[in-house]
Amino acid sequence: MGRILDISVPLHTGMVFYPGDTEPAIEPGKQISHGDTANLSEIRLGSHSGTHVDAPHHFIDGEATMDDMPLQSLVGTARVLDLTGVTGGIEAADLEAAGIRGEGSATGDQGAAGRILLKTRNSGLWADSGFHEDFIALGDSGADLAVELGLKLIANDYLSIERFHSETHYVHRRLLEAGIVILEGVDLRQVDAGDYELLCLPLRVRGGDGAPARAVLREL
Amino acid sequence: MGRILDISVPLHTGMVFYPGDTEPAIEPGKQISHGDTANLSEIRLGSHSGTHVDAPHHFIDGEATMDDMPLQSLVGTARVLDLTGVTGGIEAADLEAAGIRGEGSATGDQGAAGRILLKTRNSGLWADSGFHEDFIALGDSGADLAVELGLKLIANDYLSIERFHSETHYVHRRLLEAGIVILEGVDLRQVDAGDYELLCLPLRVRGGDGAPARAVLREL
Repeated sequence: MGRILDISVPLHTGMVFYPGDTEPAIEPGKQISHGDTANLSEIRLGSHSGTHVDAPHHFIDGEATMDDMPLQSLVGTARVLDLTGVTGGIEAADLEAAGIRGEGSATGDQGAAGRILLKTRNSGLWADSGFHEDFIALGDSGADLAVELGLKLIANDYLSIERFHSETHYVHRRLLEAGIVILEGVDLRQVDAGDYELLCLPLRVRGGDGAPARAVLREL
Repeated sequence: MGRILDISVPLHTGMVFYPGDTEPAIEPGKQISHGDTANLSEIRLGSHSGTHVDAPHHFIDGEATMDDMPLQSLVGTARVLDLTGVTGGIEAADLEAAGIRGEGSATGDQGAAGRILLKTRNSGLWADSGFHEDFIALGDSGADLAVELGLKLIANDYLSIERFHSETHYVHRRLLEAGIVILEGVDLRQVDAGDYELLCLPLRVRGGDGAPARAVLREL
């Protein structure tokens, strides 16, 4: 069995978070050094802190919540696309050039390419605790192509898949309405383009609009 | 590929928690129904709320934290043992009778039985939001056997693997000192005894003494 590569960002007090969202904090509770029998801590996170999954209810009130996220979409073969040369929005032509289309799939569907992770120059921003508004985001035509191809999941390497202060949230809405799982906030610095098995398991938050997740790639 | 069975307990305000630990709460933040552009929530959990993993640092100050948890122990073949007939502590003889020993493993190690999930009558307690002090726990000889067999991981179906108000915390210390991952708080009501692939991914909490996890079993 291949190596397991952690693509989750560490959770800690002081970590970068999306402006306006809950500031993550990990606080000590009981402490052995203070005479307690065990170390315990309190974890305070926004539903979209760090590496996380969006539920449709995040942008479409009353739609599916974290209870309804399909585990079969969150776990399975996946393709990392190298988009580190893209400096603006990621459009359909960029995805095509990077190899988004499944090839030779016996099942006729997207095969390994049914789950796509967008590796961009954003991954380098994790080294900085400040939020960068000019991150690389998926463009409208990129979202259209993801829907056309029937992707199960699409992931990107910063805290939102859509450009900062979008007026319409077209990208989120288009993907979520199509039932495509959005995984945001992965760190792909140490991962080469290619095919892997993705294991993405968000916390099971009842009624959640989103939830922090641990995501790893297993080499095939 | 087999079905994926969710063995994580849902996280919600009002859920059962270990006495003295942080009370879990999921609070609404921004809300579309209040004129916001998206739904966001705040998640407050103890490091040992619901389905979770213990790090050695939980009981052994300064030892390995969640950063150091071996992904290769958290993911791989696993065996669910039926211990629903046990009414006291789970001792070595109970584990032997339930089939803890790996058989026919080509690698000479425990094979599928390298990760063990203890299915007990505790799983029925998840239907109740109150904490039950008399849950079924792993006994000292059971922990000794787990160490002797060189298990990678051991899981149980209530909020602690050790009896309530243990004076010595022998079971925790014995397992953690041996580098065996402890996964607590899984719900095995819907799972039959047998071999599966376990996918257990705790949040990547920097320096954490433990962390909430999503855990699933994939049918082989």
